[in-house]
Amino acid sequence: MGLRSAAEYKAGLDDGRVIYYRGEQIGHVAEHDDLGIAVSHVALDFDLAEDPAHQELFAWEDEASGELCSRYFKSPTGTEDLLKRREMIEVSTRLGSAVVLLIKEIGTDALFALDLVSRVVDEKAGTQYHSRVKAFHDYCKKEDRSLAVAQTDVKGDRSLLPSEQEHPDYYVHIVEERDDGIVVRGAKAHTTCAPYVDELIVLPTRAIKEEDASYAVSFAVPVNTPGVKLIASPFGSPPANEFHHPVSSKHRMIDTLTIFDDVFVPNERVFLKGEWLAAGYLANTFVEFHRFTAASYKPPLCDMFIGAAALLAEYNGIEKASHVREKITKLITYTETVRGLTRAAAFDCRVTDFGLAVPNIVLTNLAKYHFANNYHQAVAWVQDIAGGLVVTGPDELDVLSEETGPYIKHFLGGKQGIPTEDRLRAFNLVRDLTASTFGGYNELLAIHAEGSLETQKITILRDYDVERCKDLAREAIGVK
Amino acid sequence: MGLRSAAEYKAGLDDGRVIYYRGEQIGHVAEHDDLGIAVSHVALDFDLAEDPAHQELFAWEDEASGELCSRYFKSPTGTEDLLKRREMIEVSTRLGSAVVLLIKEIGTDALFALDLVSRVVDEKAGTQYHSRVKAFHDYCKKEDRSLAVAQTDVKGDRSLLPSEQEHPDYYVHIVEERDDGIVVRGAKAHTTCAPYVDELIVLPTRAIKEEDASYAVSFAVPVNTPGVKLIASPFGSPPANEFHHPVSSKHRMIDTLTIFDDVFVPNERVFLKGEWLAAGYLANTFVEFHRFTAASYKPPLCDMFIGAAALLAEYNGIEKASHVREKITKLITYTETVRGLTRAAAFDCRVTDFGLAVPNIVLTNLAKYHFANNYHQAVAWVQDIAGGLVVTGPDELDVLSEETGPYIKHFLGGKQGIPTEDRLRAFNLVRDLTASTFGGYNELLAIHAEGSLETQKITILRDYDVERCKDLAREAIGVK
Amino acid sequence: MGLRSAAEYKAGLDDGRVIYYRGEQIGHVAEHDDLGIAVSHVALDFDLAEDPAHQELFAWEDEASGELCSRYFKSPTGTEDLLKRREMIEVSTRLGSAVVLLIKEIGTDALFALDLVSRVVDEKAGTQYHSRVKAFHDYCKKEDRSLAVAQTDVKGDRSLLPSEQEHPDYYVHIVEERDDGIVVRGAKAHTTCAPYVDELIVLPTRAIKEEDASYAVSFAVPVNTPGVKLIASPFGSPPANEFHHPVSSKHRMIDTLTIFDDVFVPNERVFLKGEWLAAGYLANTFVEFHRFTAASYKPPLCDMFIGAAALLAEYNGIEKASHVREKITKLITYTETVRGLTRAAAFDCRVTDFGLAVPNIVLTNLAKYHFANNYHQAVAWVQDIAGGLVVTGPDELDVLSEETGPYIKHFLGGKQGIPTEDRLRAFNLVRDLTASTFGGYNELLAIHAEGSLETQKITILRDYDVERCKDLAREAIGVK
Amino acid sequence: MGLRSAAEYKAGLDDGRVIYYRGEQIGHVAEHDDLGIAVSHVALDFDLAEDPAHQELFAWEDEASGELCSRYFKSPTGTEDLLKRREMIEVSTRLGSAVVLLIKEIGTDALFALDLVSRVVDEKAGTQYHSRVKAFHDYCKKEDRSLAVAQTDVKGDRSLLPSEQEHPDYYVHIVEERDDGIVVRGAKAHTTCAPYVDELIVLPTRAIKEEDASYAVSFAVPVNTPGVKLIASPFGSPPANEFHHPVSSKHRMIDTLTIFDDVFVPNERVFLKGEWLAAGYLANTFVEFHRFTAASYKPPLCDMFIGAAALLAEYNGIEKASHVREKITKLITYTETVRGLTRAAAFDCRVTDFGLAVPNIVLTNLAKYHFANNYHQAVAWVQDIAGGLVVTGPDELDVLSEETGPYIKHFLGGKQGIPTEDRLRAFNLVRDLTASTFGGYNELLAIHAEGSLETQKITILRDYDVERCKDLAREAIGVK
Repeated sequence: MGLRSAAEYKAGLDDGRVIYYRGEQIGHVAEHDDLGIAVSHVALDFDLAEDPAHQELFAWEDEASGELCSRYFKSPTGTEDLLKRREMIEVSTRLGSAVVLLIKEIGTDALFALDLVSRVVDEKAGTQYHSRVKAFHDYCKKEDRSLAVAQTDVKGDRSLLPSEQEHPDYYVHIVEERDDGIVVRGAKAHTTCAPYVDELIVLPTRAIKEEDASYAVSFAVPVNTPGVKLIASPFGSPPANEFHHPVSSKHRMIDTLTIFDDVFVPNERVFLKGEWLAAGYLANTFVEFHRFTAASYKPPLCDMFIGAAALLAEYNGIEKASHVREKITKLITYTETVRGLTRAAAFDCRVTDFGLAVPNIVLTNLAKYHFANNYHQAVAWVQDIAGGLVVTGPDELDVLSEETGPYIKHFLGGKQGIPTEDRLRAFNLVRDLTASTFGGYNELLAIHAEGSLETQKITILRDYDVERCKDLAREAIGVK
Repeated sequence: MGLRSAAEYKAGLDDGRVIYYRGEQIGHVAEHDDLGIAVSHVALDFDLAEDPAHQELFAWEDEASGELCSRYFKSPTGTEDLLKRREMIEVSTRLGSAVVLLIKEIGTDALFALDLVSRVVDEKAGTQYHSRVKAFHDYCKKEDRSLAVAQTDVKGDRSLLPSEQEHPDYYVHIVEERDDGIVVRGAKAHTTCAPYVDELIVLPTRAIKEEDASYAVSFAVPVNTPGVKLIASPFGSPPANEFHHPVSSKHRMIDTLTIFDDVFVPNERVFLKGEWLAAGYLANTFVEFHRFTAASYKPPLCDMFIGAAALLAEYNGIEKASHVREKITKLITYTETVRGLTRAAAFDCRVTDFGLAVPNIVLTNLAKYHFANNYHQAVAWVQDIAGGLVVTGPDELDVLSEETGPYIKHFLGGKQGIPTEDRLRAFNLVRDLTASTFGGYNELLAIHAEGSLETQKITILRDYDVERCKDLAREAIGVK
Repeated sequence: MGLRSAAEYKAGLDDGRVIYYRGEQIGHVAEHDDLGIAVSHVALDFDLAEDPAHQELFAWEDEASGELCSRYFKSPTGTEDLLKRREMIEVSTRLGSAVVLLIKEIGTDALFALDLVSRVVDEKAGTQYHSRVKAFHDYCKKEDRSLAVAQTDVKGDRSLLPSEQEHPDYYVHIVEERDDGIVVRGAKAHTTCAPYVDELIVLPTRAIKEEDASYAVSFAVPVNTPGVKLIASPFGSPPANEFHHPVSSKHRMIDTLTIFDDVFVPNERVFLKGEWLAAGYLANTFVEFHRFTAASYKPPLCDMFIGAAALLAEYNGIEKASHVREKITKLITYTETVRGLTRAAAFDCRVTDFGLAVPNIVLTNLAKYHFANNYHQAVAWVQDIAGGLVVTGPDELDVLSEETGPYIKHFLGGKQGIPTEDRLRAFNLVRDLTASTFGGYNELLAIHAEGSLETQKITILRDYDVERCKDLAREAIGVK
Repeated sequence: MGLRSAAEYKAGLDDGRVIYYRGEQIGHVAEHDDLGIAVSHVALDFDLAEDPAHQELFAWEDEASGELCSRYFKSPTGTEDLLKRREMIEVSTRLGSAVVLLIKEIGTDALFALDLVSRVVDEKAGTQYHSRVKAFHDYCKKEDRSLAVAQTDVKGDRSLLPSEQEHPDYYVHIVEERDDGIVVRGAKAHTTCAPYVDELIVLPTRAIKEEDASYAVSFAVPVNTPGVKLIASPFGSPPANEFHHPVSSKHRMIDTLTIFDDVFVPNERVFLKGEWLAAGYLANTFVEFHRFTAASYKPPLCDMFIGAAALLAEYNGIEKASHVREKITKLITYTETVRGLTRAAAFDCRVTDFGLAVPNIVLTNLAKYHFANNYHQAVAWVQDIAGGLVVTGPDELDVLSEETGPYIKHFLGGKQGIPTEDRLRAFNLVRDLTASTFGGYNELLAIHAEGSLETQKITILRDYDVERCKDLAREAIGVK
């Protein structure tokens, strides 16, 4: 098959999966009032691969099968592949009004990481994981499967190891080994897109010690597998009012608490089973691919910030003020540093012995770190330029009302020639992006998605060659 | 009378005032579903003045009348008065769960400014404003009136003067002078608390040139004056769910677009009428008192940030992590710098010839600037410590559900001994304060309320004695 | 006596003390080419106390003796004393061209700390230290003695305790106890002003464990005591050229490595001898007074930065550029935050049971922290405004040369009417303060003097009432 | 010829050029005590091109002549050339102990800019500049000439245009046009390396208006041309003591005030003569190449900062402290952001119609801006980790002295096993790099070399496609 249509994708979601939302189990997710918005949003992924204007970027002819497939499934072999991958992510996010799709991006990050790690585990431990990973990868590619990754365990007390916790289920673990597979129990937090993808890939969240070997587990299951239960979070989902929420009324991302209530996973879908030494390696390898994805989808939102600020500066008549120019320059500096470092990470990728290209780790983490560490400041610059009316302006119903509408039109105009309503819509854009439940979601996402700031700092310090720098200092002072 | 009860205050609001909210004119504001929450919130002001535990701070015996009055009406004569005023504001805000009341704070800031400026105008222009101001001040004090201040004009194109605008109504102006008063037209943006105060004080928003003399106008009117129409903003008002919104479900602030549709103001309530040279002076003088108020009500929210972060650090088991300690230290640095500089502004106040104490201008602006310039960073620190579950956690209905509740309880626990629900409530607190429509409102408020960052920078540069510093440099290099 | 003259002070330094400088032992320090500059600089202290224009601030009539004494020796009993102390320090530093004097400031900080701590130790351990401290304080006051404090031990490997080090002498310790006194050995780093004060007060640098009790030692000795040897650091001391170094050619501070080569200290000068539990308390108590001193002497340098930047902006013709105004505003914000918080620390002091006023610890540390944490940024703003000629301009000899002088005068002019030489002198001022060996000294001083940034952060976290904040959060979410 | 030896280069400098230093005209610059250090430093350029270990990078076979030439003269035609150029600059700077050489880097930046601009001017104005530029480029390449660029005029009052100044000579201008050439007058500030290069290239410093056409001038002259007079700045040149100044005693950069006292330039060396419309274009085009050079030579100093900080952390026993790890991580973030963005600028270069590759302007400016905007903070981190002994430690003569040496060795040790002298040398490295006259030079250089921070901000705002971003915002709110 290779490429599915958006309609096929949506139809496939009606498979009996168990999703809870606001206290109730829901039916076909694509038809749900709130969650359906997210489904429509991500369906763009399938449309783009078929759209003549975008197919060259989003689709790819698999040499093995000769089929046209989603390019996400192409394992990167060098800079060009990584740049195209970055471009796909940036373009689709931009077309999604700055909200990333993520139904294949993260999943393939996991597939690439599993590809690398399974080879090593097989070699060290005599296992046969790599062929399973390859088969699963081929299956997803051929069937154009959408994927979510469940990595972050719920963790309980974060200062304790898995087996030191109050109960054993704060990290997903193997509770039974059978001939034909394993049974797993536990829960993963904030699994993005889980309600509307086909497959869930599960990865360990941290390094594991020997006594916790049963927590060293990785596998993939269809979302409708018995025992998989999703509790979808309502946060970040404002009422679907287009005027008040020009972006989030049509574009959304949903995360779940993903429960594995004694889920059976057949052997061919198990990619790590107790090889505890490899758990941290797998967690980290995934993250390196994943942070490249992360840094790739951030610039459209930043560009939207620049645009919204510049537009309101114009509407308010302050576009020539020196402080406004200064703040817009800073927004550009912010945006283009993220984008430039991400591209640099593709340019300076490392190609492994097996031919897989890994984006430069330090540069990838820097890109993500710059984004995350300055996001709230960027929000402040946009809000500063936009002005207080962002949160003290009228409701859409006041605008429509015959009594109050004329007052609003008369009094809330800005620069001559700009309709008052356009100006109000621009305020609404800033509020939707930065000062609403969706804006709050974006703030948390900036800091915590793809690992918190601290994890990026740890990686940067670990991967930079500090000894080389110490040698420079020693040489300068004549010390060996 | 001197002191009114909260019940008397609420009853007084049912006076035929014209308020629109979400497209409809509403009736008695105190009984309105959404706006009534704000009324209940601010009613605390009256309760405190009668509460034996707080009366010493919040009430004050007026020497002239011998009556016990709200201390807000006491004109400050020195450091002690300013410190008590600061303390009143901080205490009432803290008791209001970090949401300031503002139904007398800003109004009395305006009364103090009018006191100062009217004396000067009377002297220069031979007018009789000061006695009117005094009479109005006495009336408010005696009747325990609540007050809002409408200052910021809607402004249209901000690069143009009032008379250069597309139409003449972007700034409130006098359209008719009668023997017994004036008629005014125009609109003011974001008038805080307007729907639920007794009186509106109107001040000019900027310096005025001679050709714009009709825009140099200041006055006070009861909110139910014919022609006054309020369009209340719905933003910052989330659904009143206590679990999801522990603070904002009970504590709110409402702003309005305040329309003056040919409103008649009798002479005794007019405080400036065309004396254009005084408009900027009045605007600035008000702002200096008002920024002291502003800097006084910020610390409780900052303390709440510290507390929420520290509590979640404990619940998550990370309170000893060095980066957590670092971030909490930075939150303290942020908070106490604001508080310390505000207190310093009271200590270093200037007492005018007429005996009124004005807080130190540079220190006041520094306090406000530190708060505003670092607010978003503070939000980031809190969100960083709290974790991603702030926006990916479950709905209250999921917690209550028999199907999902047990999963949530089991999997979303943190440190041993802390009930899961407490941890969820703490996440909700962080989301309510920082990552919701209310959180967004707080962000905009931080930057724009009481003047934007740029206005504080201008004031700081203008009021610091740079020439003295240049003399130090000249002296050091032997140049005269 | 009470007050000595500058001449008496200088004469008293010729007492056989052992000072090494650039590899040689020097004679009378007041007559030394380099160190003599520092002596002349600090002699200002004695001049001010006798100068009618300054005596009211710098001198004080001791009620006990009726003598006029240096106000530094007055133990603060409340806000007014602390404010006067702060003012003395700021004024004398300003008159010293932004270089602090420090020959009594730090010493009296130590006396105040010893006063507090010795009372507690006497009470707990039955010792008699307080009377010794008082006698020494009285002696210093009466004889107008100048004082240095040697606190920071050389420390060796900072991750090890005193007794874990490679040799026992990395911290000053007692090597012999005699009936009439003790013998101490060790060395203290960066003892400011040691070569030109009368007395050295020694304090422990950290908390001490029981096994290290011999390191818990405090005492005072005259600088010429046998075994005391000072190795004066040459850094921060540029050639004494007034044109190139308008400030540092006349104003300097000298630090020493202070060696205690088996120094005998008579009992009456011993203030702690093995009471290990009190070592950390003494170290910290001193630091709290000392950081108040620190924060008090910083503003004059900051004001000089503002002045130098504003002067060069004028000379270069850029004083109206928006970025220049922005940077000067930031310099003011920096300066006045430090000054305001220091004053606030005096206002909010704590008066102990014994009547001694201790500046507010959190505010004092905030003031110091703000200074230290932003100093390099302040330097950058000044250098940015000043321009590259600060380090690419001509030598004084080029200016004086008949061949090159006219070229320089012609080409290096700035704003019309400003002599070229004045402009060059202004560049030299910026270079001297920020981009010279003296400027480098100032940078290190900003970070490390009076404890590094990290120590201030630890103190702020320790002394702020975080539990109170957690209660606010708990209350908001209804958790006990 | 193609490649000269270092000896040939040095011999060539003895050509009668006029250099003043500290008030005196000097003779052969290569043999001068102070300036000779800079000559030895830059001679490395010639050594590297002949060194088998480096020749592949530093030399290049010119296809036209078949000669091996310095690679600096190769006009970049794509990413690979730019990356090699960046690599040459980084490697030679690293081998020069973090001090850049700059005797061909800037000069060829100017040649590339002249190549581009002369083509356009010839086309628009019918001039013949391009052939002259090409001939000069070929000559320099063939003769392996070293080059300096004199761009920044002395400017006088910066708020005035050239012809508005107090005298006409604040910008270099044409005072006479002859058949065979032009006569120029004026002076350029901070011309780096001028005393020890063969040729001076002169470029305009800003856009020029029609009335100032005589200021639109560009040309090249040998340094020994009559009328060219250099006043070398002594700043940044500490005494040549290797112990105290491990880097700057051997590696230096010298800037001059470069005077053109009616200098005749023959026609074939004139590249712009009154075509005022092109002046700004030439100034900007040069700067774009030049900032790429700038951003290329910064990382070795940053790496040296990382190394010095990490080394002292180890010597002091604090390498595992969390704040130390945090600061080293920030230093890495700083360094690698600059390097990554510079490489990205090469990757994303623009190839002109004529085949010349121009590094991406926004990314180049971002790289330079990040370096400059955070340099002082980086200095602070290094000094923070190093400790106060950087400026309070002993002189070399104290270390060598028999009296004091043993004390120093005993007391100033750090981590066991590290010789005290090594630790002192490490302190000296930090002081030399950051807290000395050389350190001050580095600070000013960071901000002002290659254009100040403000110029980078202007370029970033001008070159980013803000309209594209506004379109995104308009699209999101449905506004055309």
